[in-house]
Amino acid sequence: MSESKLKRIGVLTSGGDSPGMNAAIRAVVRTAHYYGIECMGIREGYNGLIEGNMIKMGPRSVKNIINQGGTILKSARSKEFRTVEGRLKAFEQCQKNEIGALVCIGGDGTFTGAKVFSEEYGIKVVGVPGTIDNDIFGTDFTIGYDTALNTAVEAIDKIRDTATSHNRVFFVEVMGRDAGFIALNSGIASGAIDILIPERKDSLEEMFENFHNAQKRGKTSSIVVVAEGEQLASTYELAEKTQKEFPDYDIRVAILGHIQRGGMPSCADRVLASRLGYGAVEGLRKGLTNVMAGIRANQLVFTPIEDAIKKHNEINQDLLKISEILAM
Amino acid sequence: MSESKLKRIGVLTSGGDSPGMNAAIRAVVRTAHYYGIECMGIREGYNGLIEGNMIKMGPRSVKNIINQGGTILKSARSKEFRTVEGRLKAFEQCQKNEIGALVCIGGDGTFTGAKVFSEEYGIKVVGVPGTIDNDIFGTDFTIGYDTALNTAVEAIDKIRDTATSHNRVFFVEVMGRDAGFIALNSGIASGAIDILIPERKDSLEEMFENFHNAQKRGKTSSIVVVAEGEQLASTYELAEKTQKEFPDYDIRVAILGHIQRGGMPSCADRVLASRLGYGAVEGLRKGLTNVMAGIRANQLVFTPIEDAIKKHNEINQDLLKISEILAM
Amino acid sequence: MSESKLKRIGVLTSGGDSPGMNAAIRAVVRTAHYYGIECMGIREGYNGLIEGNMIKMGPRSVKNIINQGGTILKSARSKEFRTVEGRLKAFEQCQKNEIGALVCIGGDGTFTGAKVFSEEYGIKVVGVPGTIDNDIFGTDFTIGYDTALNTAVEAIDKIRDTATSHNRVFFVEVMGRDAGFIALNSGIASGAIDILIPERKDSLEEMFENFHNAQKRGKTSSIVVVAEGEQLASTYELAEKTQKEFPDYDIRVAILGHIQRGGMPSCADRVLASRLGYGAVEGLRKGLTNVMAGIRANQLVFTPIEDAIKKHNEINQDLLKISEILAM
Amino acid sequence: MSESKLKRIGVLTSGGDSPGMNAAIRAVVRTAHYYGIECMGIREGYNGLIEGNMIKMGPRSVKNIINQGGTILKSARSKEFRTVEGRLKAFEQCQKNEIGALVCIGGDGTFTGAKVFSEEYGIKVVGVPGTIDNDIFGTDFTIGYDTALNTAVEAIDKIRDTATSHNRVFFVEVMGRDAGFIALNSGIASGAIDILIPERKDSLEEMFENFHNAQKRGKTSSIVVVAEGEQLASTYELAEKTQKEFPDYDIRVAILGHIQRGGMPSCADRVLASRLGYGAVEGLRKGLTNVMAGIRANQLVFTPIEDAIKKHNEINQDLLKISEILAM
Repeated sequence: MSESKLKRIGVLTSGGDSPGMNAAIRAVVRTAHYYGIECMGIREGYNGLIEGNMIKMGPRSVKNIINQGGTILKSARSKEFRTVEGRLKAFEQCQKNEIGALVCIGGDGTFTGAKVFSEEYGIKVVGVPGTIDNDIFGTDFTIGYDTALNTAVEAIDKIRDTATSHNRVFFVEVMGRDAGFIALNSGIASGAIDILIPERKDSLEEMFENFHNAQKRGKTSSIVVVAEGEQLASTYELAEKTQKEFPDYDIRVAILGHIQRGGMPSCADRVLASRLGYGAVEGLRKGLTNVMAGIRANQLVFTPIEDAIKKHNEINQDLLKISEILAM
Repeated sequence: MSESKLKRIGVLTSGGDSPGMNAAIRAVVRTAHYYGIECMGIREGYNGLIEGNMIKMGPRSVKNIINQGGTILKSARSKEFRTVEGRLKAFEQCQKNEIGALVCIGGDGTFTGAKVFSEEYGIKVVGVPGTIDNDIFGTDFTIGYDTALNTAVEAIDKIRDTATSHNRVFFVEVMGRDAGFIALNSGIASGAIDILIPERKDSLEEMFENFHNAQKRGKTSSIVVVAEGEQLASTYELAEKTQKEFPDYDIRVAILGHIQRGGMPSCADRVLASRLGYGAVEGLRKGLTNVMAGIRANQLVFTPIEDAIKKHNEINQDLLKISEILAM
Repeated sequence: MSESKLKRIGVLTSGGDSPGMNAAIRAVVRTAHYYGIECMGIREGYNGLIEGNMIKMGPRSVKNIINQGGTILKSARSKEFRTVEGRLKAFEQCQKNEIGALVCIGGDGTFTGAKVFSEEYGIKVVGVPGTIDNDIFGTDFTIGYDTALNTAVEAIDKIRDTATSHNRVFFVEVMGRDAGFIALNSGIASGAIDILIPERKDSLEEMFENFHNAQKRGKTSSIVVVAEGEQLASTYELAEKTQKEFPDYDIRVAILGHIQRGGMPSCADRVLASRLGYGAVEGLRKGLTNVMAGIRANQLVFTPIEDAIKKHNEINQDLLKISEILAM
Repeated sequence: MSESKLKRIGVLTSGGDSPGMNAAIRAVVRTAHYYGIECMGIREGYNGLIEGNMIKMGPRSVKNIINQGGTILKSARSKEFRTVEGRLKAFEQCQKNEIGALVCIGGDGTFTGAKVFSEEYGIKVVGVPGTIDNDIFGTDFTIGYDTALNTAVEAIDKIRDTATSHNRVFFVEVMGRDAGFIALNSGIASGAIDILIPERKDSLEEMFENFHNAQKRGKTSSIVVVAEGEQLASTYELAEKTQKEFPDYDIRVAILGHIQRGGMPSCADRVLASRLGYGAVEGLRKGLTNVMAGIRANQLVFTPIEDAIKKHNEINQDLLKISEILAM
């Protein structure tokens, strides 16, 4: 498909929502408009593509959404799109609606669907990394990650008020089933005494030693930040085991949960989403397909979508060391 | 004890911490200073009184704390103060430190301790209502309640982004073991479809009917706010039962937990705390004892501490009706 | 007009916008719907009434607006409505659209227009106090005031970081052309060394004395909060005069300006707006007219709209004293 | 000076304060402690170095400051340090206090002082970029920039509520005397119709054309973001000239001012500051001097301090284009 054929594209959000998805949708729609490309907004992820649940969007369809959390196109995980039949229906809808290319905003699962669909039917696809987990290869940051960090840190700041006032120890669980980015960064930012993440082999002994050292230094309250996907034990079990080791401690658990997915996006997330939405359309205009738009070292880059799926951002080793040195 | 004898007072925070306690401590210390009364800051509630864990505070001891959550004097629940021996030690410390009167910032339990102590040993006491639960008779608002409401509402706003994006139903549990003030007000403010509080007899049938009606009106996502002390069932059980009744719903639970106790106090809480801290010292100067300082209809009032303990603020009937009418 | 005749009402917002106006509109529309009363949303205040710029609103027209600042009906000041001809056109539109009663959300000017219109043409009117200035008689709080206070205090908190880091004096101007409520409360809440408001006769000498005293106590940075309507001098002049008196001071001016009008409404404002919007419709149902709905001592009350216009909330004397005692 | 000689270092903050400076101080002090290096906290920038205004700091001296705006060491601009005599005194204080190396947190001016001092007296220096302006070469982000962006965007969001409700045009001035980073990013993030920055040659004609185009598309309210250092005209003049061209517009000006310097640092700024404070000490340990610690592409890097002073971060061309395409 040459550039001249790009008359109409579709945009969808899929997987867990993240703050800034709306800013990305806005950027896709307006950049398309700027270049004279029509844009269909597809609702509820790949389900909407299968069912033809979509509308034409223009510049004013996306006004006043840049600062809103969630996604106006709604999101969903689609079982049907994993089937051959489902994807066939989706392709028929693309033909019916004259959609020659898709911008798919989401995470691993979203990209996998896009890749398979593109390979089967030749529809061009560009992925945009939208997830709070920051675990996507090919971009320094994913859309929503910065906002989720601020949400987590603001929550932990509040919890610390109570921890300090009552000389308590809090185990705070943050999101991140497979990745410890949120835990590591929010833990450093909130002065956590320990941070437990799936990427590092943690041990109770080391954690207990941290507690002993903190006690010696006169620290009377502490925060431990635990990633959802921590392998050592569940957050509640960690608290119980610590209580057994330190019977005098007043220990509590806080699960931050879904507040981390929503909220008004931060400035950084709005700008990132604007850049990636713009970049996705630019990529399509230049004939790219099966790539993901990302930002590395402040530059727009494209990564084969296969790499974005298979490879993973690695935890920075400096950060691990810093988390140990600064926790006192 | 005549006015002329009020040379030195003590101030303490007890029970669960609440945002604005520091502003109240600041007001007590500075108002005392203004009137030439010395002020001892007693640490960790009644435990500090028993152990003589206290320091002299002046106007500069309380600088830069008006905007901080928690309590710089720390708080604790004291078992020992419930015993005759404990209170005797506390009295001996009062004598040793020449403390003739106490300002006790906290809730029901704090006031009960103050009352018994005052009756036994003649130490003058004035209570200041500091609790996020707003369940204290004798004041329109307790210190920390307004901040906790904003924290809860901001969290629910974030959750609603995800609820809307994924067509989900969220059961959100807010604090309030004995009182539904936080649940009722945060529920109205966040457009909850239903609000379950201990003061009202709720039924699953009514809640299910609300869901049915919402569905008919085309509502695709909903928030239910549940007070911690709801009698009908636990928040998780409510979610499970709703799932059985509505198998198609995508239902989640979010427990807001301890984030509701901390954080920078709102303007209203800082002003309230300043007024009540000032009022407590004014009350002592005028020879009052065994009273609680409160604000009613924007005026400083004093209520017998016994009433503050025994009576309770009642849920406003208008609010209950409004919560039903506006939830659509 | 008896109760049975209330078939259709109109709702409008007029004057300066304030956070919570949307929550009030929502409450009016949904309460009306609940009672089987139709509701027209009139755009851009009285201008929309004159021009017939209005639409029918149902419960779903006001979804997802409870947490939004501004007003979806837009607001304006109408010169034409102050003329006999303008009001005649407005009445003709009421007849044409079968509007028998109006809920007018705004401040003094809004209520004056409503009163005159009602007296001339017998259209029933109920006012709802929506202004950040809190200067309306007949209610403890106006819609938007609490949010504006939090916005002002959060801004002053930030400014204080710089003041403290650089040993500076900041003169911060907050809104309030005729009333010092925002200045007095935000000043107390942010620990201002002095607060200048139109309701109190201030003098440079007293302010300078405060600075001298602060210096003696070792205070190295200070905030002075000035109401827009302060009579003594403009904020810039106050800063200049202080600079002459204290040549060593590093003095800066910050005008908070329009950020105080916007933003997501606080929980208190959303609940207040919900209660007053509900109350306005209840008032109309009970045959009231030419009244303003308000909340006093946590109860819904109605005040003759004439009193709401002519009388004014008075600054609490306790607060003035507290502002002097606590500033150190 | 070999590694073994690094026994004691000094840390100071200089120039305008920025959110995250405290987190950087904390990281310097704790990393030094970790490696057995003593650390002196020098107050009020180079003035404190000249006057010997400093204290020994240990890990607990920096507790609970990671989330505080401003700088606990205070900051100042020092005229005396620009003189030969001043720097001689500073060197004598270094000798007297056995300070062999300095970590200097600040911007251009701070680094220039450090460089000269180091060249004259052989004291090792490492710079840490702390300024909200983001105009320092050698790092992707400076400490405080991310927080300032969020503060600016939150303020503009509030202003937009009023702009939309009243169909107004707002000219919002943000900080940035020499650099347009804050203006460009906050403008994109808040959907500004135009963004005026010193790095780009702007013209009134182009701006007016944007207004005309917006009008045609039915846009009824707009935000223009102007950097403090814009060359075309002052913000007030821009507003006046626009008013002449569009007499019907209701135009207002908002100067955000000093709120942009303060506030609790964002998560990104806390982590960045922690990494750079750690990096500065690591750099000194490895014998580096006359360098600035920075983060590029998520890695710790060192840049000759001369380059950090002379070169400047350039505005990303993509961002300029995006700002034009997305503004509708």
